[in-house]
Amino acid sequence: MRITRAEFNGRTQQLLEHIRQQRLTGAVLFDSTNILYFTGFAFIPTERPIAFVLSADGERAMLVPRLEVEHAQTEAELDRVAHYLEYPGDPHPMAIFQDLLMDMGMIKENSNPQFLHSPVRPESMVVQPHQPAPKQYPIASSSQIGADMDGYPWIFGYEGVSLSQLTGMTVHNLQGTLNRRQAIKSPAEIALIKESCKWGHLAHVLLQRYTAVHATETAVSLHASQEATLAMMDAIGPLYRAQSMWLTGPFAGYRGQIGRNAAIPHALANNITFQPGDVLVTGASCPMWGYNSELERTMFVGQPSAEQQTYFNHMKAAQEVAFEAMKAGVTCSSVDTAVRGYYEKHNLMPYWKHHSGHAIGLRYHEGPFLDTGDQTVLQEGMVFTVEPGLYVPELGGFRHSDTVLVTADGLEFLTYYPRDWQSLVIPV
Amino acid sequence: MRITRAEFNGRTQQLLEHIRQQRLTGAVLFDSTNILYFTGFAFIPTERPIAFVLSADGERAMLVPRLEVEHAQTEAELDRVAHYLEYPGDPHPMAIFQDLLMDMGMIKENSNPQFLHSPVRPESMVVQPHQPAPKQYPIASSSQIGADMDGYPWIFGYEGVSLSQLTGMTVHNLQGTLNRRQAIKSPAEIALIKESCKWGHLAHVLLQRYTAVHATETAVSLHASQEATLAMMDAIGPLYRAQSMWLTGPFAGYRGQIGRNAAIPHALANNITFQPGDVLVTGASCPMWGYNSELERTMFVGQPSAEQQTYFNHMKAAQEVAFEAMKAGVTCSSVDTAVRGYYEKHNLMPYWKHHSGHAIGLRYHEGPFLDTGDQTVLQEGMVFTVEPGLYVPELGGFRHSDTVLVTADGLEFLTYYPRDWQSLVIPV
Repeated sequence: MRITRAEFNGRTQQLLEHIRQQRLTGAVLFDSTNILYFTGFAFIPTERPIAFVLSADGERAMLVPRLEVEHAQTEAELDRVAHYLEYPGDPHPMAIFQDLLMDMGMIKENSNPQFLHSPVRPESMVVQPHQPAPKQYPIASSSQIGADMDGYPWIFGYEGVSLSQLTGMTVHNLQGTLNRRQAIKSPAEIALIKESCKWGHLAHVLLQRYTAVHATETAVSLHASQEATLAMMDAIGPLYRAQSMWLTGPFAGYRGQIGRNAAIPHALANNITFQPGDVLVTGASCPMWGYNSELERTMFVGQPSAEQQTYFNHMKAAQEVAFEAMKAGVTCSSVDTAVRGYYEKHNLMPYWKHHSGHAIGLRYHEGPFLDTGDQTVLQEGMVFTVEPGLYVPELGGFRHSDTVLVTADGLEFLTYYPRDWQSLVIPV
Repeated sequence: MRITRAEFNGRTQQLLEHIRQQRLTGAVLFDSTNILYFTGFAFIPTERPIAFVLSADGERAMLVPRLEVEHAQTEAELDRVAHYLEYPGDPHPMAIFQDLLMDMGMIKENSNPQFLHSPVRPESMVVQPHQPAPKQYPIASSSQIGADMDGYPWIFGYEGVSLSQLTGMTVHNLQGTLNRRQAIKSPAEIALIKESCKWGHLAHVLLQRYTAVHATETAVSLHASQEATLAMMDAIGPLYRAQSMWLTGPFAGYRGQIGRNAAIPHALANNITFQPGDVLVTGASCPMWGYNSELERTMFVGQPSAEQQTYFNHMKAAQEVAFEAMKAGVTCSSVDTAVRGYYEKHNLMPYWKHHSGHAIGLRYHEGPFLDTGDQTVLQEGMVFTVEPGLYVPELGGFRHSDTVLVTADGLEFLTYYPRDWQSLVIPV
């Protein structure tokens, strides 16, 4: 129940072919999700820069702080691990990184010598020697280096030179290409997303069970998420790794989307008690080795009013319009256009706030998007959330989200929670 | 118990003075923490770009997706809110952003016309008209625009032009300046960090109380964090806002740092039961309107061995070396140098893995750093974690972290959990 070494290596081989085709000297990835995708190494980004490097001759390396050396050596699919002592440190981590790139043959000696501000380095800072691979490709003769961003981002107090400054080379942006590759899920990735759906489902069942008039969203969410997490740990604890920045197990909650607030999607959490007549929008997920799923339901505290039923039924019908439009070979745009057509036909555009859905995987949101502006063609192996919403002032928000897989002959539902309102009423 | 409108406005005024001094046409901020700092608007960054703009004539605006319009209008200190319908959308959000910057007088008309790929725009996309302020400063005659990064980052599937491409201007990096400003905390910010310490303390007391042989870290952490969260909600729920991407209330846990794993700092969570002889490294915090604190303790399951006591005592002494070295007017470097001196004197460098601490505030880690490479001078109002660690293979990790404030005459401890090992033993 995790990605195999062979699959990590296959991903790297694909990237290698791409950088050779593009005549790049290699690829440098700073984004933690990209690094997890290629190496299996999960970390929370901080001010201490981490980078994965793949040279055009196929060597895989990482730059990590001293703090992460053992972790990287144990967890990551790599040929070598170079490290710096600390950030900001002296020398700066980017000086060590420049040495690594030179030693891998990706940049020329003294490509930007003025940056090497500290010629004196303790023994521990010397990059580890390696057995050089046969250099079959004309690396370092290219003037371009691939990367997902131009240097480590200035987060959590980090400050440092960009990759283009460091190398003196033009940076070729690889993120778009990576987005396209990561959108097609392998059988192992789909299995992890299905496993995520199971535990998110459990958390959501418990959330619905414990929701009651006068309870608070915080108490109910904590109760349901804790119970689901302990059940999951008892079931698969010895195998389980979350590998997520956001969650450590199953979660279900309301994200503040209660009563009047339900009309504002993605509001941050606050502390409100449930009241009869509330319309609730829920959310549930569970990270599985970094992979995510999404389950959201519109629920009612007590029987919904006729008006509430009307908007619920439109929301459910709009979601079904999307399901029916989705199949391999059509564009994302056409799916969202069909959904907006339903809104327009029924005069619902005043209640529209967002497109029909997004791809999901190692990132909770990722491209492509079920959006009128996205011309990507749906392909077998893509996984999407489908979640058109209606937001009616003073009445509430109405949104289901299901996670679905595009297959050879249609859609496979990965979430399987009841969608009818009769199944989603909290007794009062 | 939150930042006042006057304080938000004062921060913006400071930024305005800086951009005028630097002769910038204005400032564009994309980082969610920076936007929270200047506007009070909290959000979780996704593929939908959000930006705060301050023009050199003092107008404050935000670009948000349709989804966030009401939220921004309600929560943020702004003169106007412009919005796009969706990402990727048609036109792309950056086309709407370009219109906003033109309308604010920050870029010239048709500065980069080839980017405006979609001349047809629905009525809802037109930026809201505003009353133009008297233009006292020669804006749009500057060739430089300030920003915290060169365009919205390519996260969660976002792809779009950089700010320099969009404006045809040179981007002046403001992040370093922002880091320096945000390092000095106001009385209101210090009060929020102290409030954070209180609830982190409660969570940590409960964590220690519920830790027992054969319990799992996951169960104990969930139990303690849930109980502390519900107590806090009962105490200050009607007032409380987390405004954090990471937590929604008090948290205490182990982050996998148990037994042998304790020697690897910042390991991601896993599922291990406590055993007699384990050395535990804990962590506790609580977000308060975005502000954080940090409390960490080394605990023992049963009486520590003589060897464990030795390393514990060295860790505690090294932390005290830092406390004694810290005062307004000395450099960060000198504090870390004093701590490393202690390690060297006692032959502890083999167990060293990281510097002595970091500043903390809206970001869990922020600059400056108690690091030999950081020459920043400590000033009144800076808040630091102090956390030298020792990591001994097969034995465990040893680290306390306290959050302290630099005052006019020394240090004020904001955390107040017992530091002696006798107070940190789990009975067996």
